[in-house]
Amino acid sequence: MTAFNPVTPALLDQLAQIVGAGGISTAQADLDLHAKDQSQHAAHPAEVVIWPSSAQQVADVLKLANTHAIPVTPWGVGTGLEGNSIPLYGGILLSFERMNQIVEVHADDFQVTVQPGIGHKDLNAALARYGLFFPPDPGANASVGGMLANNAAGIRTVKYGASKDNVLKMQVALADGRLIHVGSRSVKQSAGYDLLHLFVGSEGTLGVITEATLKLVPVPQHMSAVVAGFPSIQSAVETVVAVRGSGLDPAALELVDAAHARMLNSVDGVDLPETPVLFMEFHAAQESGLAAGLEMVQQICEEMGATSFKSTTDTAERKRLWHARHHSYEIMVRMHPDKTFFINDVAVPISAYPELIAYVEQLRDTRGITCYMIGHAGDGNIHVEFPYADEAGHALAMEINGLIVMKALELGGTCTGEHGVGIGKAKYLPAEHGEGLDVMRTIKQALDPNGILNPGKVLVEA
Amino acid sequence: MTAFNPVTPALLDQLAQIVGAGGISTAQADLDLHAKDQSQHAAHPAEVVIWPSSAQQVADVLKLANTHAIPVTPWGVGTGLEGNSIPLYGGILLSFERMNQIVEVHADDFQVTVQPGIGHKDLNAALARYGLFFPPDPGANASVGGMLANNAAGIRTVKYGASKDNVLKMQVALADGRLIHVGSRSVKQSAGYDLLHLFVGSEGTLGVITEATLKLVPVPQHMSAVVAGFPSIQSAVETVVAVRGSGLDPAALELVDAAHARMLNSVDGVDLPETPVLFMEFHAAQESGLAAGLEMVQQICEEMGATSFKSTTDTAERKRLWHARHHSYEIMVRMHPDKTFFINDVAVPISAYPELIAYVEQLRDTRGITCYMIGHAGDGNIHVEFPYADEAGHALAMEINGLIVMKALELGGTCTGEHGVGIGKAKYLPAEHGEGLDVMRTIKQALDPNGILNPGKVLVEA
Repeated sequence: MTAFNPVTPALLDQLAQIVGAGGISTAQADLDLHAKDQSQHAAHPAEVVIWPSSAQQVADVLKLANTHAIPVTPWGVGTGLEGNSIPLYGGILLSFERMNQIVEVHADDFQVTVQPGIGHKDLNAALARYGLFFPPDPGANASVGGMLANNAAGIRTVKYGASKDNVLKMQVALADGRLIHVGSRSVKQSAGYDLLHLFVGSEGTLGVITEATLKLVPVPQHMSAVVAGFPSIQSAVETVVAVRGSGLDPAALELVDAAHARMLNSVDGVDLPETPVLFMEFHAAQESGLAAGLEMVQQICEEMGATSFKSTTDTAERKRLWHARHHSYEIMVRMHPDKTFFINDVAVPISAYPELIAYVEQLRDTRGITCYMIGHAGDGNIHVEFPYADEAGHALAMEINGLIVMKALELGGTCTGEHGVGIGKAKYLPAEHGEGLDVMRTIKQALDPNGILNPGKVLVEA
Repeated sequence: MTAFNPVTPALLDQLAQIVGAGGISTAQADLDLHAKDQSQHAAHPAEVVIWPSSAQQVADVLKLANTHAIPVTPWGVGTGLEGNSIPLYGGILLSFERMNQIVEVHADDFQVTVQPGIGHKDLNAALARYGLFFPPDPGANASVGGMLANNAAGIRTVKYGASKDNVLKMQVALADGRLIHVGSRSVKQSAGYDLLHLFVGSEGTLGVITEATLKLVPVPQHMSAVVAGFPSIQSAVETVVAVRGSGLDPAALELVDAAHARMLNSVDGVDLPETPVLFMEFHAAQESGLAAGLEMVQQICEEMGATSFKSTTDTAERKRLWHARHHSYEIMVRMHPDKTFFINDVAVPISAYPELIAYVEQLRDTRGITCYMIGHAGDGNIHVEFPYADEAGHALAMEINGLIVMKALELGGTCTGEHGVGIGKAKYLPAEHGEGLDVMRTIKQALDPNGILNPGKVLVEA
């Protein structure tokens, strides 16, 4: 990595000329507010925070930073879970807070063009009147730009795909200040290299997303919910495979382990079986299709030995059934008031899911660590949540996380299903990608030769 | 582009050592058999045809070719439509005919790992006993490697996506002989740059696919078909938008124009309305869902002014209804025994589809050219088919094609929805990608500095 230069007063003047005096700050409060995301990684402040208001300003800032070898870290709303937007080398923090507008709704095309700073929940609220929505939902009200940069996913990915599957076109500012577009508003395109997906998931290390056209989906007219308990993780996961094999196309297929279910039950109004639990959701255009589907799901669950089964097509009842899952993180945090949480994120082919889960249970029992499992089972994705109180607890969680990651890789999986690499997962990429990692380095070198874009993330010197 | 060297007798010896004496030929018959695809582009022979039998052999051939600056062109089965696999600069033709095996069926994961030379129809025949299939279907029995290299799509893409959406992991041989893997068998992965999608659709110009793990889908238990006639293209396309907006999730949504419908009707047993016609197919896990869906489709078609409507859930009747669409190309060729065909391939956002179609109709009428339109309307993709008899006819078809491409780009679309760039579309990439094309060149230069991989395709010197 090249040595970076400090942000000098002369450079601050030039930056202020680009974004205007109101779009730049070196106040400690602003630096502190953009020094840390929601992960356990240590805070690190930038030297200056900049709020661009246009793609051209972003490009101009990058060009200047590139010329002077100043690091630039893009920032959505700071809900990342792997330190993805911590300005580890100082320099410029590029906040997209003011680039948060809907540029155009293409309702007939089921598309919307947005600026990157818009929160996906805010976007969906605005899209409701068109009967359309942007399906990826990582939980927090993450910015769309951040979701694309990290290829965020979430609960509905089993049906609708991850962020990468729900974007058609982007405008990207390159390190040298070029503004390019990648992809097309045409849903089909075989016209050259897929640069769109090269920039999606690159966490701002290859270019900075300044605009995106997203795929939208009609809001489902009818939805149903299922909550079913199982005697073992094995039988729960066999049910996941069977439900997917049936062609039922679930919109969510979530697993909570027995420990987590017990913990959630300590909250008023939650009444889960204290066994491994599957939460499911189905979407349909016709109510009749929904009812037939629920019968089929119940039959599959019973064949797989389900010890409890509740289902509904009623909206209020559906929300009640899903309440514990949707609020599981808040409930867990509330139940551990004196703890910090580390959330692991690995994914494996679904057939390897039982072995992965059994391995985590074995680690938990033999190492005597408290942890909870909650996962997007339909995608083979699990989050192991570790509450810890001190340095030793953190170190143990990190050690166990490393073991789980290596197990996931051994099972043909990945070190991160949806949180991205950021700071925390960079050390596992050699094991996951082998010589493919050298190709990633070649591309990084070609597109950002001075290494100014989000340094210290994704690709880290060995 | 660097100057290439000829394939010398000494080099033939070295190649024979890699693939064995039975895996190499310079016989004119073999060169001729691999000199042309199904496009209108002129044949050009390689200097030697090689049939590798393993990924390592492919890598070793590339390493040797790279050292000696010999062009290498990968070949699946030659069903391309843009000259994608014509060895334009001679050198080595790398045929995957003998690398056509299923490596492993991961039935519980709905995945299969294959060698690139397997035909997708052969693959699906072998997968039938697992109740699974690989959905992209470009018509011909294209090789999976060729489909991935060109990001082929086809009739079912509106529901199941293009080739790029149905692949999880690949092994790729690089120009310098490194063998890497890209992607993961985990359906979710946010671990660094998406190299998988960089190689998919790169038409063998960045690396050569030597193995692929594909996503599979359960074979639908129940299918229905609809054939509906409309008073205008406009009303047909409004129906497409309405059907998609209803949440019905069609598995196919195809348009045939009135001229094409009239032409198809000249064949025994075909009885289409001689108007713009929509062909639809729906897949469902339960029969009841299907029936309710058909009622909804009929209602939408009637609201949009359909002048005829036929639907069925019966398998034989469905096949009969779709017969004309599935055999449209053969029928067209048979009806024009003395003509060659050029098939255009552009796609636009669906809202721009009526304007694109109206433009083609206007060109047809004002320029007095015979052409037929058939398209994947659900994706905004149209193929204009031009029969021609001589040089002048070919030149006119090319001119009209150029106008249609520029119109598609003006409407926010692409010069190629599913056929790839190959030779024919390279000249339109500057208009489609602008400075993004320079980024593609940068990546090509970084990964294939000697330009040996499929030269003359995708990126062509200005």
